[in-house]
Amino acid sequence: MSRFLSPKHAHISPYVPGEQPQDMQYIKLNTNESPFGPAPGVAQAAAEQAGKCNLYSDPECRAVRERLAARYGVAPENVLLTNGSDEALNFIMLAYGDEAHPVAFCDVTYGFYPVLCRLYHIPYTEISLKADFSVDVEACKKTAGALILANPNAPTSLALRRDTLEDMIAADPNRLVVVDEAYVDFGAESCVPLIAKYDNLIVVQTFSKSRSLAGARLGFAIGNAALIAELDAIRCSLNPYNVNRMSLAAGAAVLDEDEWYMENCRVIMENRQWTAERLRAMGFSVLDSSANFLFAAHPALTGEALYKKLKARGILVRYFSAPRTAAHVRITVGTRQQMQALVDHIGEILKEVQA
Amino acid sequence: MSRFLSPKHAHISPYVPGEQPQDMQYIKLNTNESPFGPAPGVAQAAAEQAGKCNLYSDPECRAVRERLAARYGVAPENVLLTNGSDEALNFIMLAYGDEAHPVAFCDVTYGFYPVLCRLYHIPYTEISLKADFSVDVEACKKTAGALILANPNAPTSLALRRDTLEDMIAADPNRLVVVDEAYVDFGAESCVPLIAKYDNLIVVQTFSKSRSLAGARLGFAIGNAALIAELDAIRCSLNPYNVNRMSLAAGAAVLDEDEWYMENCRVIMENRQWTAERLRAMGFSVLDSSANFLFAAHPALTGEALYKKLKARGILVRYFSAPRTAAHVRITVGTRQQMQALVDHIGEILKEVQA
Repeated sequence: MSRFLSPKHAHISPYVPGEQPQDMQYIKLNTNESPFGPAPGVAQAAAEQAGKCNLYSDPECRAVRERLAARYGVAPENVLLTNGSDEALNFIMLAYGDEAHPVAFCDVTYGFYPVLCRLYHIPYTEISLKADFSVDVEACKKTAGALILANPNAPTSLALRRDTLEDMIAADPNRLVVVDEAYVDFGAESCVPLIAKYDNLIVVQTFSKSRSLAGARLGFAIGNAALIAELDAIRCSLNPYNVNRMSLAAGAAVLDEDEWYMENCRVIMENRQWTAERLRAMGFSVLDSSANFLFAAHPALTGEALYKKLKARGILVRYFSAPRTAAHVRITVGTRQQMQALVDHIGEILKEVQA
Repeated sequence: MSRFLSPKHAHISPYVPGEQPQDMQYIKLNTNESPFGPAPGVAQAAAEQAGKCNLYSDPECRAVRERLAARYGVAPENVLLTNGSDEALNFIMLAYGDEAHPVAFCDVTYGFYPVLCRLYHIPYTEISLKADFSVDVEACKKTAGALILANPNAPTSLALRRDTLEDMIAADPNRLVVVDEAYVDFGAESCVPLIAKYDNLIVVQTFSKSRSLAGARLGFAIGNAALIAELDAIRCSLNPYNVNRMSLAAGAAVLDEDEWYMENCRVIMENRQWTAERLRAMGFSVLDSSANFLFAAHPALTGEALYKKLKARGILVRYFSAPRTAAHVRITVGTRQQMQALVDHIGEILKEVQA
């Protein structure tokens, strides 16, 4: 720690992202990326803007906001564009959290929420998932502070129904509820239709997963115009040109081919079902996923052990070190070919282990 | 203000960027962009990555950090990549400023510094420039708090010599000095060579101006490895994938053609000299610029008046409303053709005004 660092950061503990090997020798099932590249036309749209990158991007991100508004049945002033949805979460924490305004989220959920809270010294409560990894809705209602729910949740893959979420949102109009829908397009119900009805709701989504743009960094928040205006004031206080020209062009091109992406989601959902069935047949417990990943555990080996054996065979998955999740691996659902390789290798690993 | 906004943001006052008209009907001399597009090869490098954007970007930004390290004679661990240099400034303020650790900067300088301080409730002192708009070096030395100096300064265009900055950096090893070198490639001396000697120095630069990538959002900080590691911990607590794949590819391609960009800078410096001479001949006072813009005032009309008259003629420049700068406009130096049009229109405007 340098003699200049603010003492408030003495115990800083950054988020640790999944491995991103640059040599691409792995079947990469560890960071919930799409196995499908962007639609035809997206690269061309981005390349056209690359040649114009001497000029700043549109700080109001109008083209993408207008398309998102049309896609989701809201107005452009209900939409905020961010440099990945992590940036939307950052703006939300900075806007609505402080030492007197705590935050609550589940104990097994996206690891970035506590990182942000610790950075900003926002007190937070972790609400225990039930033994079956489902969200404890009654406990959520009782816990004080702005509520952040990933739906579907990560790494569990489980989704709440929209009417269950509406029940929580309606329970206390003076409590802000943030629904992080990074994985919603893989079979869960979005809360976006509730925006018009509740002014205490912000929905966060991303182009990273269902729209194949993890590497372009494009996320968004949808909410009541007053909340979005506040988040926009935070954005313009931190980085008014937060989204670059090429990602804006890519995002607009992606939305022009939305059906192509939703078809990709259907393929991933089929591959998910196919993989879950085979893993269960091999003795895994696999939660019912509404996301593009599976959360699976086998009695014969820990998550870390399976991770290591798969990595040695050229397949990356993710494991967790917390006691509640140490038995599990999180496996991104890729192409059928990738899933076949995964299943084959796991079969061989289990034979070795159980020999 | 919603009932959810943290009271600490009750008086939030975001940065207001220069106009970014999307219809491109103007000669745009208002936000210090390069008039030259990126080098051949940059768009292609970005396009290649666009097709791979389903995968996350390298969170360590290795390819660009290694090239920057080689270019500037430092090690990769001395370099932090950011989503525009505004993000580097954000990380620095958040890491090193707090209510007990104030910041100091000049009263006429980049307007983003006070915005960040107000957002984070960091007390700040504004050090008055001298009557001739030069930095008051003795006052800077006497003022408490981390010192942030834009060099060349904006909007004044004036640069301090490196030995003057070294004198300030060496004066107090327990004071952090941040030198914001967004415009350094247009004729000023960089403080990067001082990094090896002083561990209380951070230099911030950007690809936005001399390297024609304003729209790609790519900035960087260079400093002692301990300081860079702290800024990296902040980065990974906020947005571990802060720079997208396409901008990283564009940045690497730009650094592979560095001489091409430095030649563009020489052209802009020639056009700057050409324009300054003609403005002075028309009665303007024009400061001796070391940047890609001119700071100029004419006794016959205020900055705002000149801005409005030029806008009506299809040329955008920037004016300021603060008393000390209200007489001036800031004019980005573009191509010779753009500068000829500017000079011709100003000549006509002066004839009208003085008729």
